Amino acid sequence: MNLHFTGDFHAITTAHNLLSALIDNHIYWGNELNIDTRRVVWRRVMDMNDRALRQINCSLGGVANGFPREAGFDITVASEVMAILCLATDLKDLEKRLGDIIVAYRRDKSPVFARDLKADGAMAVLLKDAVQPNLVQTLENNPAFVHGGPFANIAHGCNSVVATTTALKLADYVVTEAGFGADLGAEKFFDIKCRKAGLKPAAAVIVATVRAMKMNGGVKKEDLGKENIEAVKKGCANLGRHIENVKQFGVPAVVAINHFYSDTDAEIAAMKEYVAAMGEEAIVCKHWAHGSAGIEELAHKVVSLAESGASQFAPLYPDDMKLFDKIDTIVKRIYRGSEAIADKSVRDQLHAWEQAGYGHLPVCMAKTQYSFSTDPNLRGAPTGHVVPVREVRLAAGAGFIVAICGEIMTMPGLPKAPSSEKIFLNEAGQIEGLF
Amino acid sequence: MNLHFTGDFHAITTAHNLLSALIDNHIYWGNELNIDTRRVVWRRVMDMNDRALRQINCSLGGVANGFPREAGFDITVASEVMAILCLATDLKDLEKRLGDIIVAYRRDKSPVFARDLKADGAMAVLLKDAVQPNLVQTLENNPAFVHGGPFANIAHGCNSVVATTTALKLADYVVTEAGFGADLGAEKFFDIKCRKAGLKPAAAVIVATVRAMKMNGGVKKEDLGKENIEAVKKGCANLGRHIENVKQFGVPAVVAINHFYSDTDAEIAAMKEYVAAMGEEAIVCKHWAHGSAGIEELAHKVVSLAESGASQFAPLYPDDMKLFDKIDTIVKRIYRGSEAIADKSVRDQLHAWEQAGYGHLPVCMAKTQYSFSTDPNLRGAPTGHVVPVREVRLAAGAGFIVAICGEIMTMPGLPKAPSSEKIFLNEAGQIEGLF
Amino acid sequence: MNLHFTGDFHAITTAHNLLSALIDNHIYWGNELNIDTRRVVWRRVMDMNDRALRQINCSLGGVANGFPREAGFDITVASEVMAILCLATDLKDLEKRLGDIIVAYRRDKSPVFARDLKADGAMAVLLKDAVQPNLVQTLENNPAFVHGGPFANIAHGCNSVVATTTALKLADYVVTEAGFGADLGAEKFFDIKCRKAGLKPAAAVIVATVRAMKMNGGVKKEDLGKENIEAVKKGCANLGRHIENVKQFGVPAVVAINHFYSDTDAEIAAMKEYVAAMGEEAIVCKHWAHGSAGIEELAHKVVSLAESGASQFAPLYPDDMKLFDKIDTIVKRIYRGSEAIADKSVRDQLHAWEQAGYGHLPVCMAKTQYSFSTDPNLRGAPTGHVVPVREVRLAAGAGFIVAICGEIMTMPGLPKAPSSEKIFLNEAGQIEGLF
Amino acid sequence: MNLHFTGDFHAITTAHNLLSALIDNHIYWGNELNIDTRRVVWRRVMDMNDRALRQINCSLGGVANGFPREAGFDITVASEVMAILCLATDLKDLEKRLGDIIVAYRRDKSPVFARDLKADGAMAVLLKDAVQPNLVQTLENNPAFVHGGPFANIAHGCNSVVATTTALKLADYVVTEAGFGADLGAEKFFDIKCRKAGLKPAAAVIVATVRAMKMNGGVKKEDLGKENIEAVKKGCANLGRHIENVKQFGVPAVVAINHFYSDTDAEIAAMKEYVAAMGEEAIVCKHWAHGSAGIEELAHKVVSLAESGASQFAPLYPDDMKLFDKIDTIVKRIYRGSEAIADKSVRDQLHAWEQAGYGHLPVCMAKTQYSFSTDPNLRGAPTGHVVPVREVRLAAGAGFIVAICGEIMTMPGLPKAPSSEKIFLNEAGQIEGLF
Repeated sequence: MNLHFTGDFHAITTAHNLLSALIDNHIYWGNELNIDTRRVVWRRVMDMNDRALRQINCSLGGVANGFPREAGFDITVASEVMAILCLATDLKDLEKRLGDIIVAYRRDKSPVFARDLKADGAMAVLLKDAVQPNLVQTLENNPAFVHGGPFANIAHGCNSVVATTTALKLADYVVTEAGFGADLGAEKFFDIKCRKAGLKPAAAVIVATVRAMKMNGGVKKEDLGKENIEAVKKGCANLGRHIENVKQFGVPAVVAINHFYSDTDAEIAAMKEYVAAMGEEAIVCKHWAHGSAGIEELAHKVVSLAESGASQFAPLYPDDMKLFDKIDTIVKRIYRGSEAIADKSVRDQLHAWEQAGYGHLPVCMAKTQYSFSTDPNLRGAPTGHVVPVREVRLAAGAGFIVAICGEIMTMPGLPKAPSSEKIFLNEAGQIEGLF
Repeated sequence: MNLHFTGDFHAITTAHNLLSALIDNHIYWGNELNIDTRRVVWRRVMDMNDRALRQINCSLGGVANGFPREAGFDITVASEVMAILCLATDLKDLEKRLGDIIVAYRRDKSPVFARDLKADGAMAVLLKDAVQPNLVQTLENNPAFVHGGPFANIAHGCNSVVATTTALKLADYVVTEAGFGADLGAEKFFDIKCRKAGLKPAAAVIVATVRAMKMNGGVKKEDLGKENIEAVKKGCANLGRHIENVKQFGVPAVVAINHFYSDTDAEIAAMKEYVAAMGEEAIVCKHWAHGSAGIEELAHKVVSLAESGASQFAPLYPDDMKLFDKIDTIVKRIYRGSEAIADKSVRDQLHAWEQAGYGHLPVCMAKTQYSFSTDPNLRGAPTGHVVPVREVRLAAGAGFIVAICGEIMTMPGLPKAPSSEKIFLNEAGQIEGLF
Repeated sequence: MNLHFTGDFHAITTAHNLLSALIDNHIYWGNELNIDTRRVVWRRVMDMNDRALRQINCSLGGVANGFPREAGFDITVASEVMAILCLATDLKDLEKRLGDIIVAYRRDKSPVFARDLKADGAMAVLLKDAVQPNLVQTLENNPAFVHGGPFANIAHGCNSVVATTTALKLADYVVTEAGFGADLGAEKFFDIKCRKAGLKPAAAVIVATVRAMKMNGGVKKEDLGKENIEAVKKGCANLGRHIENVKQFGVPAVVAINHFYSDTDAEIAAMKEYVAAMGEEAIVCKHWAHGSAGIEELAHKVVSLAESGASQFAPLYPDDMKLFDKIDTIVKRIYRGSEAIADKSVRDQLHAWEQAGYGHLPVCMAKTQYSFSTDPNLRGAPTGHVVPVREVRLAAGAGFIVAICGEIMTMPGLPKAPSSEKIFLNEAGQIEGLF
Repeated sequence: MNLHFTGDFHAITTAHNLLSALIDNHIYWGNELNIDTRRVVWRRVMDMNDRALRQINCSLGGVANGFPREAGFDITVASEVMAILCLATDLKDLEKRLGDIIVAYRRDKSPVFARDLKADGAMAVLLKDAVQPNLVQTLENNPAFVHGGPFANIAHGCNSVVATTTALKLADYVVTEAGFGADLGAEKFFDIKCRKAGLKPAAAVIVATVRAMKMNGGVKKEDLGKENIEAVKKGCANLGRHIENVKQFGVPAVVAINHFYSDTDAEIAAMKEYVAAMGEEAIVCKHWAHGSAGIEELAHKVVSLAESGASQFAPLYPDDMKLFDKIDTIVKRIYRGSEAIADKSVRDQLHAWEQAGYGHLPVCMAKTQYSFSTDPNLRGAPTGHVVPVREVRLAAGAGFIVAICGEIMTMPGLPKAPSSEKIFLNEAGQIEGLF
């Protein structure tokens, strides 16, 4: 497994940027579709954290280079093509969804689709192999699909429907990961993927660590190694919020305490106690040390939950709720904020999409993974915060509305000392510095 | 073999753009190296014909997105990383060359290297697999390396040194292709790759077609199917030029007439006669119809040329010639132009590089493949034309100077009806429209 | 009096843009002051409604043209130089204020002043004549100063302090105009000009028209000619609000009904009745028809108010109130909105200015003149609206903070059919089409 | 006479920029004229040396600000409006010429005129007063017109036709200045102004200084104070060239040696001798010390030349010469270069204008005033230099083609220490630092 893995990301990047090139090329050659160059909404993507590309002016340099316009790049994981790949049920559906992508609007605000540019066929061809789930094996030779990678902070956060439905045909129990906090990963898994693909999860595992509790309890990073039971207790408010959130979807849950060698018994006991007080169970997992054996208890619990038939899964909000109300519902019920706010232009845009027949779509929140609020430094279980919706984007092919909240960026930047500085090939030609 | 092939292009693109991101990131975080943002010479690349990216302004949108500057994209085949991959002798050399790349200049015009940004290690890691030559087999199960793809019009045009030297260890005779006209592909193969890698070609095959002769003889594309012996004779001036050019390098040559079903015997006879008059032999090849058997005569001829020991290969110009004189020499002796011209700023730049110790490098001409001149419509064997050098770029890692001549673009655009419009997946999920 | 009048606007434009040029020139020549090019806050100005210049990228085209950055133009009336000219007490004070202008910030957010660029002297020289008030005469040969033109929607809206204080030395009673609605013109006259210049107005005249009442009462423009007493009564809510607002400043007021030939007696009676019910007097003025004679009753009333000593003028808020509270106070007490809102970045900026010693400054609201709210279509006397503060600017030389609210632009655009289309010189060489 | 003088420059700036705003405004409101936004050739102007504005992207920031495009500013003296003001014969002609301005081209390359935007009327109104010549008086109370200011390096360099023809009606002898070297000022006065206005100059005065001779003779600025007869003699080659050039137009000439207190008798004698050897006379002028009296001898000589009837004035080239040949003629006969060169795109542009009916226009060279060549450091009387034409512009209203040669800029920049740094108002409120 190398840094380029199976090339899926490259295929997605290429398919995405082919569409971008076709848009500007169409404008260049006379713009028969009357695309309003100020209203091109399809950005480009790169699989690189490159803040310099967030906002650009392109087509500069004179007549031969096209019509100047404002543009930008997102990171590949935020590409609608990535979301489509993950939500498509088969190749035919993939191609159809690619055609449904809205790339721009005309002066009269009518949409221009990828299909209008005849881009869907070639894009599907570029994704032909990438749509096949990648079967890999764990160190213990268990099969696993690794397929699709939309991050749950800036995208819809779930692996592919194809991988999940394939797995469901092959295995008795299928476990899937929904990244970042349950406010992001789980919410999107339930409200977008399960809703769209008709999946009914039988049980949920909420993964937690003693260290995370301490961090949410206010302990600084350098002090996480020291026992601090008070901080664990205080930080459990964050865990409690996640438990409540998962239960709102009608899915029975168990907490998996991902053990770390420095965790003390007293700290673990405090966590278990907190979870028990909420009527749930927390199980210590030591797979980092013992492999599958270290997680056997959890596995039995999950099977028992799944077999219990207790799950009564339902999404958080119905399809026919107004778009802004959907956002507001997530803010209030999952993030426990006081309200979602947005400029008139954002609300008008949502309303226009409702008029155009996209009102039934679910929303995909783009928000920092570090807090229930939009302030990454606000740990624990805050309430009453306002969630500002900065921008909304319609992913008509993927089938959702993206609501970009607070300062979250769909193109991250690199830190002052990028990890690439430490990566090199040693004398033996082996990679060093990856971890 | 799919559209993404082995992923080498993706790896090159990623390594190239990692360096780009590191440059802007370094500037963003305080610019300790004092990079002059107006003098960043490392562009970005994309494996897409996207004229809208030729010239951009990046880092727009305020403080968080960095310092605005003028930038642009080239196509991946024009990347210096591609050239380095093709000229590197091993992984260690690859990493060294990556470190040698000049990414920018300071206000005092001193260079900033990729090494200064600690980018070379991670770039080498990204290219670790791509540097291995890709062994494929022909329809007749003959082994062949397909490795590296710098186009000979805008880049140095040769496959990788690693592939060639590996093949030389494995086979009795190694044939390598040098794309586009011999004024581009062969000249660069001799003056850059052979010079750098110490290769001494034993013989050269100049591939020609009856149709190309007719085209150079002034026949329109739609009339190429009709016999026209006069046009063949007239167009042979172009072929004659290529023969002379190859012989200037001291390498014995044979002409391979790549047969096309509509070629008439009289036309082929005219070609053979012309070549014979120049003291060389032209052999008709019908591999398109008969496979290896169709090209056996040529193979024997090549072996006999190679074994003759007649080759006295030497590059066109010595290392210690002035940079502009090297350009002028190629213009006069290969393109048969009257002179190379350039603005004072271009000449000053070349002089500055000479002062900085890069004067010994060979030059890599970027020029249209359609003519010996810079005017794509000037067919045949023109003389006396002026070749304007629009821009020069130093590829310090690859080890050459790029001279961009006439209107040639390092980022092409798509045509009015891009071929992607016709590509799609049919009902059986198979790709259609590729050819 | 021609279209260029006395050239004051040209002088202000030139002085303003000299400073702009000096900033970029300083950066070009080595940037000794370490200006952060992303944090240049001094825009350029033009005395032209030119929306294309609102946001630009400048210094493009390579090394010789400087360092690219994001910039923009405002209209001249929004220039801080205009405000300084109008608030300066003499030439010395003018030069001092010009030096106090903050043009940019460094990376560490410390300010760079116009003085640091040695721009104040030359700017003062350019304004030497413009600072002299322009004495003109009315058609009846009464003297009047016309001096300074900051619009009250996007700027501080008052004529020059020099003109007013000069007039106060020369005349028994000085009348000055504060443009647009009293929520804009009067509030800024009281809170900025009077506060700064120590002026104590003895009386206020609120100018109103029957037509404006009908418009605020919901009548469409094309129906304003028809008698509509109900609409007058309804629209008087707007007038009532202005009366209350002026009285909040402790200044006795009279309403001047600016008569229009189509006003009916019943309509005027309705207005008078409404004003009387508020305890004030409304006087019909017919100067459009009768000149001074038509306004004599009003003049006597104003003199009597002024001589009464009833004025107990005080600004709306004290100097030492927090900056955002000042904005919020105006929103609640003058605009009758529920609150002012602003992004965290705006609030942080205000806080930073307070830390830097600018907390005592008054605020200058930039807001549409068509409504008490930020929605130009919301007529009458709305309450409960939220006023979003989009951006804040520090005018350290003029001595106030500009709060840009809603969609108001500091650089207007032209309408679809600009009035310039109708202006021309007739056969006699006279101007036609101005009115 | 203050820094803004009579406001003519402001009027020209405003009229010019009104047209600019109307163009972008037209595009914004639907672009009924189908202007190709990549082919807008009408730039903006500012009366400020501001290199940051040479090349900009405008209309950024979203839908409300228009369609992004590449644009730029020139300095006001380079405005075609300035040239029109100076070449117009009366108000009617002025308005006609304003309407003739080509502001942009359509996709099919057909021109869009200022008239199409209905801009000519309002522009003429803005220039109504500026078109009147400004009559000033010298320190000795002689009348003089100061009217119009197109610099001779980047523009056509002559004062207004209106001023000259007015003066011709009022005075016996009219003297007019043509700035910079005679290769620029005189050539344009003869080939553009005299040709257009039907003027027939009777005599020419070539102004020269001992110091300039020494400078052209290779003396450094700091050594100009020292006697150096050899350098004077050497530098006279430059003067000789100017004498020859003026005589090519058939106009008798006299050389005026503008005396400087440090000039030595031997130096002056050397100059006189050189001029005499060319068959002309050089007269020492001391008006800096003695006023009119110091220049009496020159005046008598000029009168005698004028009365002699020796003038046989004719422009350098006929109207019907090809445009590029006109440029080449000036290069060869006036600059004594070997040839004018230009990219194909420039030649194609000239050819297109010839096809469109503009082939009869004279050319206005934009070139450094420091040398006969395009290299400002090449003093004396160089020959054989190549003159590259970088860009051509059509001034259809003014009636000439501008050929921009070498590195000359139509928007200058400020030096490292701008003179504005030393300008201020002293305690008495007087301007200091202007000289």
